[in-house]
Amino acid sequence: MSALGPLYPAGMSQPSQAGAPAQLPAPVRIGLLGCGNVGAAFFSIVADGQSGVASRTGMPLEVVKVAVRDPSRPRPGLGGSGLGGLLVADPWAVVADAEVELVVELMGGVEPARSLVLAALEAGKPVVTANKELVAACHGELAAAAEASGVDFLYEASVAGAIPLVRLLKDSLAGERIVRIMGIVNGTTNYILTRMSEEGIGYGAALAEAQALGYAEAEPSADVEGYDAAAKAAILAAIAFDAEVVSSDVYREGITSVGASDIDFAKRLGYEVKLLAITEREGEDEPVSVRVHPAMIPRAHPLASVRDSFNAVFVEGEAAGELMVYGRGAGGRPTASAVLGDVIEAAHHLREQSRPRTSRRRTTRLRPISELRSQYYLSLEVLDRPGVLAAVATVFGSCGVSIRSMEQVGLRHEARLVFVTHTALEADVQATAAGLEQLESVERVTCLLRLVGSEEEAR
Amino acid sequence: MSALGPLYPAGMSQPSQAGAPAQLPAPVRIGLLGCGNVGAAFFSIVADGQSGVASRTGMPLEVVKVAVRDPSRPRPGLGGSGLGGLLVADPWAVVADAEVELVVELMGGVEPARSLVLAALEAGKPVVTANKELVAACHGELAAAAEASGVDFLYEASVAGAIPLVRLLKDSLAGERIVRIMGIVNGTTNYILTRMSEEGIGYGAALAEAQALGYAEAEPSADVEGYDAAAKAAILAAIAFDAEVVSSDVYREGITSVGASDIDFAKRLGYEVKLLAITEREGEDEPVSVRVHPAMIPRAHPLASVRDSFNAVFVEGEAAGELMVYGRGAGGRPTASAVLGDVIEAAHHLREQSRPRTSRRRTTRLRPISELRSQYYLSLEVLDRPGVLAAVATVFGSCGVSIRSMEQVGLRHEARLVFVTHTALEADVQATAAGLEQLESVERVTCLLRLVGSEEEAR
Repeated sequence: MSALGPLYPAGMSQPSQAGAPAQLPAPVRIGLLGCGNVGAAFFSIVADGQSGVASRTGMPLEVVKVAVRDPSRPRPGLGGSGLGGLLVADPWAVVADAEVELVVELMGGVEPARSLVLAALEAGKPVVTANKELVAACHGELAAAAEASGVDFLYEASVAGAIPLVRLLKDSLAGERIVRIMGIVNGTTNYILTRMSEEGIGYGAALAEAQALGYAEAEPSADVEGYDAAAKAAILAAIAFDAEVVSSDVYREGITSVGASDIDFAKRLGYEVKLLAITEREGEDEPVSVRVHPAMIPRAHPLASVRDSFNAVFVEGEAAGELMVYGRGAGGRPTASAVLGDVIEAAHHLREQSRPRTSRRRTTRLRPISELRSQYYLSLEVLDRPGVLAAVATVFGSCGVSIRSMEQVGLRHEARLVFVTHTALEADVQATAAGLEQLESVERVTCLLRLVGSEEEAR
Repeated sequence: MSALGPLYPAGMSQPSQAGAPAQLPAPVRIGLLGCGNVGAAFFSIVADGQSGVASRTGMPLEVVKVAVRDPSRPRPGLGGSGLGGLLVADPWAVVADAEVELVVELMGGVEPARSLVLAALEAGKPVVTANKELVAACHGELAAAAEASGVDFLYEASVAGAIPLVRLLKDSLAGERIVRIMGIVNGTTNYILTRMSEEGIGYGAALAEAQALGYAEAEPSADVEGYDAAAKAAILAAIAFDAEVVSSDVYREGITSVGASDIDFAKRLGYEVKLLAITEREGEDEPVSVRVHPAMIPRAHPLASVRDSFNAVFVEGEAAGELMVYGRGAGGRPTASAVLGDVIEAAHHLREQSRPRTSRRRTTRLRPISELRSQYYLSLEVLDRPGVLAAVATVFGSCGVSIRSMEQVGLRHEARLVFVTHTALEADVQATAAGLEQLESVERVTCLLRLVGSEEEAR
């Protein structure tokens, strides 16, 4: 037995609710891999008798072993008597422990998490994880291992923290034909873009502010270059379309080239700029498109009003229509709450010896970004001399890209032309951008944004 | 066997996905009670082989019997060969049919739906319903019958249509201590309030427009007086707090007293007016508050930007933080999509003979509206004569209600005073309103709105 004993009040096995069944099952014994922010929050929710998890759910839980890098380090956040007797340095000792029935993986990274999770699943122990790198890279392999053992492999917390997106797609929309998912799934970049939009400050100043507040890392590229969002996009595509998609399959652009003037221009046209993770498929046998890039989104769209570090995911289903889920995409307690929901589901299946539902994975064709059709915003730094616009317009025309509107902004020495196109093919727009950069009168293409929503709606 | 035979393509029992298990289970045979908008949409999604429900979920479904009022009426929307052989007039024949394994109840109203659902559950047949009146009135009784038989009683579609709220609360937030739920759960009133806010038109004109568009009934009181929202509030309270709450327990006000000038004033203060269903509880042993009334909500709040006939529900959990789900709260296909998610869950449990999770219900104390603490907006029609404000302010003061701001609006012959109070007790504000109406100089209190969000946040 653990040093702490069952983490629920002694009287709890005989709940006092009117009409409730007499007996709670024996507590499900959990092994925790990693005990950072999320792990500590999870532990304290489960351990807090006052929180009444067992009385609310009929499922008592008990954390019996916790793997951490340094078991000797004091952990005052976890209470005095705390975690003492449960801590070990070796995660394999947690997975292998005969007492551990269910594994919660919160280490992050692909290895050794992948090997540990595989070992647990192969030993018939359900696994709950919040590790997006792991799920994005190895979802198919881990789901197959879980299915072979007839146990759960659940990962609600790996996408958008507390937002119940995985359950929405797998359960609520089971049977639904998903058309498109668009998500704000990275809180750091949404905070930066919100500040740029609302305060008119530049990217650098907004990033510095996010770093000062702890929303962005000192080395921010995982967030601002879109890598974090790309991992989540891969997971969303995998669930929505039963697709074999990993992070490196995702077309990815970050927000570093978005300037204050681009956001200002977007706002004047009635748009907000958001970093979106998008996955879509036109029909059952069509290829899946999955990409991350900053986009201009009409102000009336529900995603446009998602501010600061909040996350939200907008789902379009054939029958369900438009759905959006919104909430905290990160943070110890919100993420721990999502982990807890999964743990309770897996615990019920374990105690009732029922096999979880399985999903079917197929090899999937992906649609390359070059085949995307969209409207585009382009911003060019140009020399202020006669004939520039004619030369620029010629490049657009020769690539078959039709211009919807053009505006000159800025002063003489830093003249800038901004364009919004009609719906065009990405390949043609990329050719246009390359052609423009060949022009002597064009310094460079400073920003290229895709517009979200149909051209008709936007007018 | 049914006249139609299994409603999935013949080749489907051997799905062609790589790595998928070889065999689908036998189709789950469904009896449908009612075939209006939602029933027809559900039937066509299930019957459409192209929609691939079986291939996406591993669970083939077959509708084998449908009870309708008039089986002889042609139903062209359901295709030529259509529903012919499946239709019966007697719903009891559907429930009693030995072939029917699972019942989908879409009749609406409490009886005979209640008796039919009870009979099905007692016969060990899981039931899925979209009937909010039934769930709001009889949830406890029906859940107990389902538990006794070890089968599912699922009702995702009964609250907010396609929005996956029940699953969010029961599964994703299992174990979470819910603090508060605030929802826009009636599309008709949200459409009316949106038009009033955006076009500056009055309640009557906006209602007429909603009626012309089919969003509101000719006799609109179920929507505009808040009865529909109250049923949904009861269901939300029941799920969130395991509370025994029925529609008639819900404090209820509609939107008919909200005028264009009230909305205009709210907007100038930075608020939108929304009809909200609210349920909250301060602690595990505290009474539950459940109410429906128009409220002023700060513009930056995610609920404030929910427009037209969309629904959204905002959930505050102790660990999860703030979550919101948004979507189509009504309509045949969105509601049918929610029904389908439930049917697939119940079908899996049926085929795997696993008992669904049960919830515990306790008798619940309800907090009367008189104990609410909130900020308030009051609008008074007054005679334009000296000393009115002094008399009015005296009433506020003697009832212990502190005024935050006052404004006189309107012209000489229709003078109006509007007040926003500091946080006050509802009982005191009601006493104030009653006292004001006793004053000779006050014609009447035309509108009383509660403000949502703490006073500190709102400043």
